[in-house]
Amino acid sequence: MEVMRFCQSFMTELYKYVGADTDVPAGDIGVGAREIGYLYGQYKRITGLYEGVLTGKGLSYGGSLVRKQATGYGLCYFTEAMLNAAGKSFKDATVVVSGSGNVAIYANEKATELGAKVVAMSDSNGYIYDKDGIDLDCVKQIKEVKRGRIKEYVDAHPTAEYHEGCSGIWTIKCDIALPCATQNEISLDSCKALVANGCYCVSEGANMPTVIEGIEYLQANGVLFGPAKAANAGGVGTSALEMSQNSERLSWTAEEVDAKLKTIMVNIYHNVEAAAKEYGMEGNFEAGANIAGFLKVADAMYAQGVC
Amino acid sequence: MEVMRFCQSFMTELYKYVGADTDVPAGDIGVGAREIGYLYGQYKRITGLYEGVLTGKGLSYGGSLVRKQATGYGLCYFTEAMLNAAGKSFKDATVVVSGSGNVAIYANEKATELGAKVVAMSDSNGYIYDKDGIDLDCVKQIKEVKRGRIKEYVDAHPTAEYHEGCSGIWTIKCDIALPCATQNEISLDSCKALVANGCYCVSEGANMPTVIEGIEYLQANGVLFGPAKAANAGGVGTSALEMSQNSERLSWTAEEVDAKLKTIMVNIYHNVEAAAKEYGMEGNFEAGANIAGFLKVADAMYAQGVC
Amino acid sequence: MEVMRFCQSFMTELYKYVGADTDVPAGDIGVGAREIGYLYGQYKRITGLYEGVLTGKGLSYGGSLVRKQATGYGLCYFTEAMLNAAGKSFKDATVVVSGSGNVAIYANEKATELGAKVVAMSDSNGYIYDKDGIDLDCVKQIKEVKRGRIKEYVDAHPTAEYHEGCSGIWTIKCDIALPCATQNEISLDSCKALVANGCYCVSEGANMPTVIEGIEYLQANGVLFGPAKAANAGGVGTSALEMSQNSERLSWTAEEVDAKLKTIMVNIYHNVEAAAKEYGMEGNFEAGANIAGFLKVADAMYAQGVC
Amino acid sequence: MEVMRFCQSFMTELYKYVGADTDVPAGDIGVGAREIGYLYGQYKRITGLYEGVLTGKGLSYGGSLVRKQATGYGLCYFTEAMLNAAGKSFKDATVVVSGSGNVAIYANEKATELGAKVVAMSDSNGYIYDKDGIDLDCVKQIKEVKRGRIKEYVDAHPTAEYHEGCSGIWTIKCDIALPCATQNEISLDSCKALVANGCYCVSEGANMPTVIEGIEYLQANGVLFGPAKAANAGGVGTSALEMSQNSERLSWTAEEVDAKLKTIMVNIYHNVEAAAKEYGMEGNFEAGANIAGFLKVADAMYAQGVC
Amino acid sequence: MEVMRFCQSFMTELYKYVGADTDVPAGDIGVGAREIGYLYGQYKRITGLYEGVLTGKGLSYGGSLVRKQATGYGLCYFTEAMLNAAGKSFKDATVVVSGSGNVAIYANEKATELGAKVVAMSDSNGYIYDKDGIDLDCVKQIKEVKRGRIKEYVDAHPTAEYHEGCSGIWTIKCDIALPCATQNEISLDSCKALVANGCYCVSEGANMPTVIEGIEYLQANGVLFGPAKAANAGGVGTSALEMSQNSERLSWTAEEVDAKLKTIMVNIYHNVEAAAKEYGMEGNFEAGANIAGFLKVADAMYAQGVC
Amino acid sequence: MEVMRFCQSFMTELYKYVGADTDVPAGDIGVGAREIGYLYGQYKRITGLYEGVLTGKGLSYGGSLVRKQATGYGLCYFTEAMLNAAGKSFKDATVVVSGSGNVAIYANEKATELGAKVVAMSDSNGYIYDKDGIDLDCVKQIKEVKRGRIKEYVDAHPTAEYHEGCSGIWTIKCDIALPCATQNEISLDSCKALVANGCYCVSEGANMPTVIEGIEYLQANGVLFGPAKAANAGGVGTSALEMSQNSERLSWTAEEVDAKLKTIMVNIYHNVEAAAKEYGMEGNFEAGANIAGFLKVADAMYAQGVC
Repeated sequence: MEVMRFCQSFMTELYKYVGADTDVPAGDIGVGAREIGYLYGQYKRITGLYEGVLTGKGLSYGGSLVRKQATGYGLCYFTEAMLNAAGKSFKDATVVVSGSGNVAIYANEKATELGAKVVAMSDSNGYIYDKDGIDLDCVKQIKEVKRGRIKEYVDAHPTAEYHEGCSGIWTIKCDIALPCATQNEISLDSCKALVANGCYCVSEGANMPTVIEGIEYLQANGVLFGPAKAANAGGVGTSALEMSQNSERLSWTAEEVDAKLKTIMVNIYHNVEAAAKEYGMEGNFEAGANIAGFLKVADAMYAQGVC
Repeated sequence: MEVMRFCQSFMTELYKYVGADTDVPAGDIGVGAREIGYLYGQYKRITGLYEGVLTGKGLSYGGSLVRKQATGYGLCYFTEAMLNAAGKSFKDATVVVSGSGNVAIYANEKATELGAKVVAMSDSNGYIYDKDGIDLDCVKQIKEVKRGRIKEYVDAHPTAEYHEGCSGIWTIKCDIALPCATQNEISLDSCKALVANGCYCVSEGANMPTVIEGIEYLQANGVLFGPAKAANAGGVGTSALEMSQNSERLSWTAEEVDAKLKTIMVNIYHNVEAAAKEYGMEGNFEAGANIAGFLKVADAMYAQGVC
Repeated sequence: MEVMRFCQSFMTELYKYVGADTDVPAGDIGVGAREIGYLYGQYKRITGLYEGVLTGKGLSYGGSLVRKQATGYGLCYFTEAMLNAAGKSFKDATVVVSGSGNVAIYANEKATELGAKVVAMSDSNGYIYDKDGIDLDCVKQIKEVKRGRIKEYVDAHPTAEYHEGCSGIWTIKCDIALPCATQNEISLDSCKALVANGCYCVSEGANMPTVIEGIEYLQANGVLFGPAKAANAGGVGTSALEMSQNSERLSWTAEEVDAKLKTIMVNIYHNVEAAAKEYGMEGNFEAGANIAGFLKVADAMYAQGVC
Repeated sequence: MEVMRFCQSFMTELYKYVGADTDVPAGDIGVGAREIGYLYGQYKRITGLYEGVLTGKGLSYGGSLVRKQATGYGLCYFTEAMLNAAGKSFKDATVVVSGSGNVAIYANEKATELGAKVVAMSDSNGYIYDKDGIDLDCVKQIKEVKRGRIKEYVDAHPTAEYHEGCSGIWTIKCDIALPCATQNEISLDSCKALVANGCYCVSEGANMPTVIEGIEYLQANGVLFGPAKAANAGGVGTSALEMSQNSERLSWTAEEVDAKLKTIMVNIYHNVEAAAKEYGMEGNFEAGANIAGFLKVADAMYAQGVC
Repeated sequence: MEVMRFCQSFMTELYKYVGADTDVPAGDIGVGAREIGYLYGQYKRITGLYEGVLTGKGLSYGGSLVRKQATGYGLCYFTEAMLNAAGKSFKDATVVVSGSGNVAIYANEKATELGAKVVAMSDSNGYIYDKDGIDLDCVKQIKEVKRGRIKEYVDAHPTAEYHEGCSGIWTIKCDIALPCATQNEISLDSCKALVANGCYCVSEGANMPTVIEGIEYLQANGVLFGPAKAANAGGVGTSALEMSQNSERLSWTAEEVDAKLKTIMVNIYHNVEAAAKEYGMEGNFEAGANIAGFLKVADAMYAQGVC
Repeated sequence: MEVMRFCQSFMTELYKYVGADTDVPAGDIGVGAREIGYLYGQYKRITGLYEGVLTGKGLSYGGSLVRKQATGYGLCYFTEAMLNAAGKSFKDATVVVSGSGNVAIYANEKATELGAKVVAMSDSNGYIYDKDGIDLDCVKQIKEVKRGRIKEYVDAHPTAEYHEGCSGIWTIKCDIALPCATQNEISLDSCKALVANGCYCVSEGANMPTVIEGIEYLQANGVLFGPAKAANAGGVGTSALEMSQNSERLSWTAEEVDAKLKTIMVNIYHNVEAAAKEYGMEGNFEAGANIAGFLKVADAMYAQGVC
């Protein structure tokens, strides 16, 4: 009740400044489905409007399917596009995914769907390594249902290994690394280990998981690097798709949302790639993402006049 | 002019309380296309908004195709889904449809399209029985063009029979009965006759045409029963599709509307079926419809907070 | 800055009277992408609304693909529908297109795509004739990049001819004439020359390029005549598609816009053709366009009540 | 907190339908200063408007002085006007006031100020009679400070009498009776007693304290009768004055409010008197009040058109 | 009903562009109290606002007292101020008033109240001359009650004279002439006659009743000239007072309105006089009125910025 | 033009958050009549509302008379009330006023009007001492017309003295000191000098001109101390009066504004005095001002509910 009243009081002040065509906030740390529901209810109560003023809504009142999966799936779509352009693919690749939250689980799911074998995942205590490929249903059971620790995985899969500590995961031999746990989780040393092991692609699912020196080292060694700013945009992209569904007064099927999410991520890759090339930094997708983002905003501002 | 002014004056008061994102009224008994047009015109005049504030609009100012057919078609889509789940289908089934208004005519049309033979229809005076299958064009000619009585059918089809009175229609041997005439038109006795004749499905196109004891008898005898609350939702479902078209500023083709209508009705069936099963009343679609409807509203209210 | 401030000041007064659901202005002579951008920016600044209140917007803030091509492409879609109904087609036809602006260039492009050979284009000084078919890339280079004159074409294509003056273009033998330059560019004499040369279709891309006596002469001699009111509606039709994209908060691909544009133009042809037939003037598409347009407005007004 | 939240939730729904220029609710039974404050706060929070949307507000946020006194003072102003027209006045008159709430206390105060001697007051248990004139400060002390019973008065004033029961108060000899306690408190028998004792004026401070037969008896015997509908309008009149102060963004002094209240009540008397005379019922102020009220509303409705 | 519906339909479009703080229309030729009532009712119905959006309202729904008298009274207040500054006054002056409508009747009434003797009035047929001073009650009876002609005056007052034709009235010897009938009613010849007869003041109650050459002649001969633009502003001034009363939610007494009207008119005189003096045309009130009016608007525009 | 555009652009963002019933900004340092005019013009242009959304407006578009004088006059009204309560008055008192801006000049003017002799004024360079009383017209001429320095005063008044430096002014023997120059202008030493010279009243026209230790010393020595928070509230009080005039659509005369200003300041004194007494600090007006201000806000917040 305390949380509900806080949300209601907050929206009583906020409602004047948001709207489906004005500003559309979404949840974030500490503001999940419950809080979005309370905020949305108060907005509807005050304005009488049943419109998509917030994203991350529950399915019963305007939310979108595939929202939970969006960042992880989107990461793989971006990465696959980047790989394809380099004549590579997830197909038959060995992948390390750090983390075991929503981003990591659904990155694993989609990478596997695209033909990869994911051999490691982690949580804040340590990581598991399963040379036969992670049994994702087991991870989901541990993390989504039992809310347990990743090390429980080895109880069900005796042939898998559990190691304490998080950084060791990057010493596992892999083709592709998908850091989906937390900021700064890949140090310069981890990058060196990845390169030494033949990893040819690092793509970020977490927010800025690779330290700056690490990024430079990876790029200098020809590793395809997908920067978080572009590679993990699937979540906010699906918020936009939720807004489209609200505006159309339709609920798309999971397949439709997934297909549009894929289109968004592939387009992001192409924009990022093109911007890097145009400004003389071909293959530097981090520079490309910064340039493309800046130009889009700057062009729109310029076109719309100042004053 | 009297009707027009009444509608205009009514909307002058109402316009503050409705809107495309607030509440969207539709026509009903005594409020048809003409009245909706006047109401819509006044709303537009006062607010300056060309938006989908009402449904059932004329095609020239935002209405949807397939509206007239929606309840009848939707009834058959729901019923077909229910039949399919039981390993049955309209294909080659003998069907009795009561009534000869929009619901009945287009239920006949769609059932026939799905492979059934409709052998009887009725109006408030009596019913016709045509063992070779009703000639629907003839019925449309009588009812939609000439505004005549159903008994005129036998003039054109001498081999068909006309019987005075409405309840006799349920004594005709059939596989599927689609009551599309009026409330309480199927008594307990009619249900007994239907069961005795081997009817295995009753699905309601009218609002609550089957008496409560009749419903219980049908269910007790294993007859698939499609309750009006779910089975005749095609009309209001198409109102929602009209709202989507207005929001998109597009007019869908008849095929598109029909396809989406089908999706809606099939989803309704699955939701109803699942709710019945979850609450231990598998196969009782009437209970399922009540439960699913209540839960959808209750969940949304709970999620959006009280106060 | 002067233009920007003028646009801003104008919108400061105008914003109360326009809106995505009220009135949606578009650019016209002297109001291009730059001015639309300034007007849009001021609207957004004042209302806080990010909505499709204007069309012709830049791609970075809500504009549509295929806008530049819309009128020219649409002209060919309409014309192809008209030809098909007469058992003809652009396939293998010889076409004369007057003008070399957006309408002419993209009419040429689409006609060529549909199998025709375009042998002549013009500008306000004269026309070129290339019996092998115009090299459209060369025309685009001259007109879109170099902003030059059409006679430069013969520098690159020595076998082509350049003639001073505009009216001579209609003396070239052709199957189909697409006047896309300016008002009243086809005189009665030009019509006689076209008919004498076996031309069986004239379809207008410019606004009213054929003089009234000319239209009558063409119709009297069995030439298929596509009136500007219907045939060049592709531009405003794409404005409507831009509004739909804004409402859906989606950006369609060029292919999607093009496909919808085609549907719109074909529907226009069918409405025009049907109206002409219903009112006893079969084949007179000019009358049909006037009748269909008037009836659509009149029916909507009547349905929405007066007062 | 429960009451506060109820008020806030109620206003969250109500705020769309009220406003300083639309409808302005006031408190009533169970809705006092506390509730008005909560309602007002929520209205201000939601709308951001600091306007006089409710009356009966606290002095710190827009309320008016003399609100507590308004009905009682107003009763005496109306009555004095009625008496003056008959060549009489409160001056030196003996007055009985029933009740000891706000209406009664301030009717006593103003009547005394106008020269009368108030000899009796009451509460729901009984009444006091003080032939020397009620000591009003003592009554205020008992009722407003100690929240006690009226019989405590005789503790401080041994020469006064206390009698159990309410109806006996009307058997006290008086010139003017001001029933300010409750509905139907003056029966026909009480009226007969009043007339027998020479009472020449009964003016109602409570809502309809005199039974219908009593009113007729009083009028038949030439007693000046001030009907509640007009005589106790001082409260709602002061609500209007609160609205004026809010609109002017000024707070009038108590003297100013009192003076305007007097003007209002005297005008009411004159309107009522004139209406009675015009419709042939001179001196029948009850009929006059009904007629004047009806005509004011009817005239305004007629003038503003129907539809 | 036709008029009512016209007014309602007109306001249905107009209501978006007017408002108590935006624009406040008033009646004029053909739009009297009846039409203002219908317009006001529709505005209130649509907006739900009870605000002073129009002036000239009926007394039962927000109108002001002294509206009918406003122009005539205001003319005399302006004129008296002008006379006083010249050491003169209405006191004991002989006055000719042309016309017998609202302006003329109440100019006569106020002039008489200020001590003048009004000896002539007129209508469109002719004028009356009563050397003993016009009996204004008689004129009101003829014009306001019986809707008759001014010549009926001589029936009741045999010593008065009636003359056919309007221009003769200006040949009557008088000190002050108040043209209150119609445009251009005082020709140059009339001006010469007035000057020849010793008239020292002409002040306009009608709109521009004096021809331009006449004004110049009067000024050249030292006659005090009160131009219509300033002298007959009492009507619009009282509209402003109606707006103030609406804003305060108060109805002023006739005395209060009259006093404020006087203040307004005297201020106008002083502003006009000062502007004339400052710009080197002392005593030329026509120039002063133009200058003062222009400067007030220009200063406000300049202060509020351009763009 | 730069300033104008800045103001317009600022108001384009601000207009949503202000309004006559919401928040009403006023000018301050760097935002004078010119800027208020531009801001007001833009607000009116965007909203179409002619309402009192800002104070400090020019007289031609809603400003109030006596605004320039308000703080200085108000200081004297507050001080006179404080003096009167102590049995003293400005009458025949010798006064020192620091500063020579609006506050100082009009404090001098009003103090003189109330019977005092003002013997010193200052600017940021030094102070003048005129034992015969300052010739205020001369000061106005120097400061308001010539924009010169206060030392020029001695050119016109040879018997007056000019001293460099500001703090010396407090060593002049006086009964009442009105610091109207700047913050912290009266040090503890200055306070000692004032007390030593028999000064019995210090009242602040500037914002917090007296250092905290000085205030304590003055109070400890029985000097009447008028704190800035209360004593110089005349400016903001007159802003409120401007709002009232706007709401009434009336312009008060200078006399009316001045009278209301006096009432406001005297009421402030009484509230401050009463609050000090109630909380056991009788005569400590600084504490009283803090307490009264806090309680007014706290009471209103409490009454209006939290959440």
